[in-house]
Amino acid sequence: MRRDPMTPGRAHVPAAQVSSAGVVIVGGGFAGLYAARELGRAGVPVTLVDRRNFHLFQPLLYQVATGGLSPGDISAPLRAVVRRHRRTRVLQGEAVDVLPDARRIVLRDGELVYDRLIVATGVRHHYFGNDDWERYAPGLKTIEDALEMRRRLLSAFEQAEKETDGGRRAALLTFVVVGGGPTGVELAGALAELARQTLRRDFRRIDPRATRILLLEGADRVLPPYPASLSRRAHRSLDHIGVTVRLGAMVTRIGADEVVVRDGSGEETIRAATILWAAGVQGSPLGEILARRAGAELDGAGRVRVTPQLTLPGRPEIYVVGDLAVVVGADGKPVPGVAPAAVQQGRYVARRILGRVRGEAPFRYRDKGNLAVIGRNAAVYDRGRVRLWGFPAWFLWVFLHIWYLIEFDNKILVMVQWAFDYCTRKRGARLITNEPDEAREGAE
Amino acid sequence: MRRDPMTPGRAHVPAAQVSSAGVVIVGGGFAGLYAARELGRAGVPVTLVDRRNFHLFQPLLYQVATGGLSPGDISAPLRAVVRRHRRTRVLQGEAVDVLPDARRIVLRDGELVYDRLIVATGVRHHYFGNDDWERYAPGLKTIEDALEMRRRLLSAFEQAEKETDGGRRAALLTFVVVGGGPTGVELAGALAELARQTLRRDFRRIDPRATRILLLEGADRVLPPYPASLSRRAHRSLDHIGVTVRLGAMVTRIGADEVVVRDGSGEETIRAATILWAAGVQGSPLGEILARRAGAELDGAGRVRVTPQLTLPGRPEIYVVGDLAVVVGADGKPVPGVAPAAVQQGRYVARRILGRVRGEAPFRYRDKGNLAVIGRNAAVYDRGRVRLWGFPAWFLWVFLHIWYLIEFDNKILVMVQWAFDYCTRKRGARLITNEPDEAREGAE
Repeated sequence: MRRDPMTPGRAHVPAAQVSSAGVVIVGGGFAGLYAARELGRAGVPVTLVDRRNFHLFQPLLYQVATGGLSPGDISAPLRAVVRRHRRTRVLQGEAVDVLPDARRIVLRDGELVYDRLIVATGVRHHYFGNDDWERYAPGLKTIEDALEMRRRLLSAFEQAEKETDGGRRAALLTFVVVGGGPTGVELAGALAELARQTLRRDFRRIDPRATRILLLEGADRVLPPYPASLSRRAHRSLDHIGVTVRLGAMVTRIGADEVVVRDGSGEETIRAATILWAAGVQGSPLGEILARRAGAELDGAGRVRVTPQLTLPGRPEIYVVGDLAVVVGADGKPVPGVAPAAVQQGRYVARRILGRVRGEAPFRYRDKGNLAVIGRNAAVYDRGRVRLWGFPAWFLWVFLHIWYLIEFDNKILVMVQWAFDYCTRKRGARLITNEPDEAREGAE
Repeated sequence: MRRDPMTPGRAHVPAAQVSSAGVVIVGGGFAGLYAARELGRAGVPVTLVDRRNFHLFQPLLYQVATGGLSPGDISAPLRAVVRRHRRTRVLQGEAVDVLPDARRIVLRDGELVYDRLIVATGVRHHYFGNDDWERYAPGLKTIEDALEMRRRLLSAFEQAEKETDGGRRAALLTFVVVGGGPTGVELAGALAELARQTLRRDFRRIDPRATRILLLEGADRVLPPYPASLSRRAHRSLDHIGVTVRLGAMVTRIGADEVVVRDGSGEETIRAATILWAAGVQGSPLGEILARRAGAELDGAGRVRVTPQLTLPGRPEIYVVGDLAVVVGADGKPVPGVAPAAVQQGRYVARRILGRVRGEAPFRYRDKGNLAVIGRNAAVYDRGRVRLWGFPAWFLWVFLHIWYLIEFDNKILVMVQWAFDYCTRKRGARLITNEPDEAREGAE
């Protein structure tokens, strides 16, 4: 482990040394929030900084994008979550710099001193150098992203109902999802249900069941991190609900209303008014700041490589956790960027800071299994020798998600209503808001 | 009744004359939607045009503004509401002109022919010629308005928590509501509960209970249309929950972080970071178009004066209903701009078109009473000799609203959850979204 010459011997800092400066946590996602709760319960002074005033349950964000849930249903105000921890302070703010030698973090409108710093700012979608694609193919990381996707999806149907030109109408009813990982699979599945079930009888001129939904994946199967047998089942479920999966498909260009795809048989231009991006992520800007200021090493996607103790090499007082961290598990495999891993990492660093972890005991990822949902009654679950699909996997998925949301904000009835709507093929939050130029002019 | 020389003898158009062009309804608020449902049930061809794809339950919009409800909770997709009426078509579009002699309505992207036209585009808030005030004091008519109010309210507390300057912090914790009608009273009441109950323990440096909430009303009492005794009770309830009511207060200027008020004792400048407008309405632009094209007469607020049959004088095939219409009831009093009146007007014109109204029988407003809520367990209800206040009025209010929302979209569990949160002083939708410059950059 590299030692910073300015801070000799800091490799092991016992909990007793946490002064009134306390622990600063940047990012209120799964990793940051679980760390904050664990530390708050123990009475350690904590400052939790986030640009937003709420924690977002990202695994259900695609449901907001497809009109099944409202933003408020999958969010909990950070202040409410940590309300009982009197020594925990929440600040809405944006971290713009870190001064590791002074143990200071610079916010856009102030500075904080820390004893320990936990960086948990996550990842953003990214376009592999084609940033101009974002305009045409929005990604899905924030509430605003989800509402923008919802606006585009629902507006495409509205436009198609009015369109008289057949070719243009076909383009409006063609939806392309780029990326066949869990997010892409869930989006495509929810979109198929929206078109074929929820909207089925809503239009008079178009038949939403005629919608074409394409899922493009560069690898040779969907859900590449899962076992091949589950990928096959997911693929079959997607086929069944009307999603056309194209494997080995590389996107070479995205423009207004079109996407160009190359595969083994050549290049093809697909006319589609709605293109959704679920293909890649990159570390948030704080990763780069840590690289510049504290010598952090980044991987190709801008994520931070950390020690087995989740600290920056040579900076044992700086932890990086959640999706932003790159760490190899005890089994030699990289820890995946999923919510349970983030939760476990958040708890681990909190316990370390509290002196409850023995010596240099590394972070151990306990794999709770992979779970992806394709549609109503269709999901896949993989946990080593336990594999579920179809209704049991779907039921497990609903149960786990409701459980989690209840833990935070007691949204039990909201979630029961949602599960009910889900089963009856209804979607409660199908409103188009924030239309670019119409939004502010009344109800006409 | 004035007759248009171009269309002699059209004063009475029997239902049998509704051709395949059918009825065009512009606006999917209470009046438009109830007319559409009545006509749709009878199998008459209907085209319902609205700029938005959803019906909005405006009476609860202030709950979205103060974080008690999500936009999806008080909205129903128009297509879903009229789904069963196979001859009813919904178009998302904006009416920009009317050609009454050709019986055509011009949309931004097309034209529609009508046999009968129902104009139900409602009203917008207005600033009595001071349009520059809107920047500093947003009004509350659309979902976007409500989310903007919510953003300002919650951000003010977030800013105050970080502010070190005492004067500036006081301004951040001062909220001014302009207008003491039902909207202003409900907003001020909800705001007081937000500050004094929901957020009570959420902050560490500021005490939200120290929030100053001012309600400014130009008349000599709040809720001017109500009987004086209920105004007094409402006033007392507002006092009790910590709203400072100032009567006879005229706003003479609104700027960034300040509002200038004149009353009997002179002029005063109030420093307040958050100013909310609930003071005036004006007719939507379609009113002026009807004035220009069809000789409609407008009142001072740009609303359309209609015959006792809710038609334009001399244009018996054009109806104006809901808040946009000015009509004097059988009792000589103007019909108020409230949801029950809009519902009744929508049903009345539908029945007229269906030939179910005898001859020239005028619209009769059945007053179901006035109901305004000040806070949890505090409301006032007035229906002639029946007057309620306190818990009974509040319970009636909750019951009526839940009932209405269930009728449209079966949101029963959502509403039960909300009523539960309301009683336990929690607010489920306290997220700040769409921050002007931060919204699109991730979760940090």
